[in-house]
Amino acid sequence: MRLRGRKGILEALEAQPELAILQPEQFKGKWSSVFGNDRPIHVELGMGKGRFISQLSALNPDINYIGVDMYDELIRRGCEKARESREEHGGDLSNLRLVRYNIESIENMFGDNEIERIYLNFSDPWPKKKHARRRLTHGGFVKKYEDILNDNGQIHFKTDSRSLFEFSLNSFADLGLRMRNISLDLHAEGPRTDLIMTEYETKFSEKGMPIHRMEVVIGKQALADHLQALANTEDK
Amino acid sequence: MRLRGRKGILEALEAQPELAILQPEQFKGKWSSVFGNDRPIHVELGMGKGRFISQLSALNPDINYIGVDMYDELIRRGCEKARESREEHGGDLSNLRLVRYNIESIENMFGDNEIERIYLNFSDPWPKKKHARRRLTHGGFVKKYEDILNDNGQIHFKTDSRSLFEFSLNSFADLGLRMRNISLDLHAEGPRTDLIMTEYETKFSEKGMPIHRMEVVIGKQALADHLQALANTEDK
Repeated sequence: MRLRGRKGILEALEAQPELAILQPEQFKGKWSSVFGNDRPIHVELGMGKGRFISQLSALNPDINYIGVDMYDELIRRGCEKARESREEHGGDLSNLRLVRYNIESIENMFGDNEIERIYLNFSDPWPKKKHARRRLTHGGFVKKYEDILNDNGQIHFKTDSRSLFEFSLNSFADLGLRMRNISLDLHAEGPRTDLIMTEYETKFSEKGMPIHRMEVVIGKQALADHLQALANTEDK
Repeated sequence: MRLRGRKGILEALEAQPELAILQPEQFKGKWSSVFGNDRPIHVELGMGKGRFISQLSALNPDINYIGVDMYDELIRRGCEKARESREEHGGDLSNLRLVRYNIESIENMFGDNEIERIYLNFSDPWPKKKHARRRLTHGGFVKKYEDILNDNGQIHFKTDSRSLFEFSLNSFADLGLRMRNISLDLHAEGPRTDLIMTEYETKFSEKGMPIHRMEVVIGKQALADHLQALANTEDK
């Protein structure tokens, strides 16, 4: 990897505006126009090096994806990964945007009901109690997610951190939200490659560390569908 | 320990009807009269050797306790433990009954709204999928618990089994029940002796195996109190 100064990285991002977005607030409420269609928008908050969202977006051309992280260098690497993923899986990059942004202000990036799904993968656990508000599953964040998610809205959350998962279970429970498909050892019965593994996840999972996962059903329609599915299962 | 035949064990139980109960169905809806007062009744389903309920009942004379397990020998040992606990902590055994019964028919032992709390401690995980219905946190059981628990009703659940805890999280979530104080490593910051540790728990916890715990808020009043407490916390 060639070393670059911060200026070099910024220039590299500015050179690919069709993929990297540095000023996302201007698109609040208008992301459909960015993608040029009304397909559902799925967002990964804290995409890291971008492997997860690159692969997922390559596999699902009918969904629009936005990866968010706050450092230029991560966005640059994400762009590289995304281009590599298309070489591997085919397809173009029209359904993907990688955005440099601080998630703390996520409500300034998306309008109400604008997105369908939020992925939180291996978010920083912020283990000290005094930093609890910075955890991406803290009630302060989740209330913002509830606003920007639409009627089909869901949160998909994965972490290797037992303490963050414990915190998150309580956070969602205390908010009265509906969790499902809770797993305390996601790959116990073999790698769940259908869920796309992050780089971090592959590494830690290979070392035998359990990965925790859950989905949170937020949107009204998503909740109705979920309850119907549960009722159908019970009938059987 | 002196070896006894099954007949000897039964005789030992029949000799202490003030503590050991072998035909509990006759007391369905009438447990207050068994205790001679209207104090809340807390029940441990699957008490094993009885250390937990013996200690808890010694420490809380104003609550009535019922320990349930299905084998004569466990009830006999439980009676011994209970008498030992009173020698240690003082008090009498009037607030404790140890009952031989198959939990599968728990609805024949208690009337609607008759009890206030259910403890499930280190229940058999029944790891095979085909045995899922036997797990004490399966929906089939939980629906019975909802009937027999009163307006203040809660379930307190502890286990060292990650798979059983995972199953239980999903079971309670799918039933739309309110979980709280979820812990994936109960003694992470030192032994929580305030919660009374079972024999099994002490042993496994000392080996560094994480203990999982949660409470499920069932009763209407319990739920209202819980929501009020959450609202008060948020105000601060």
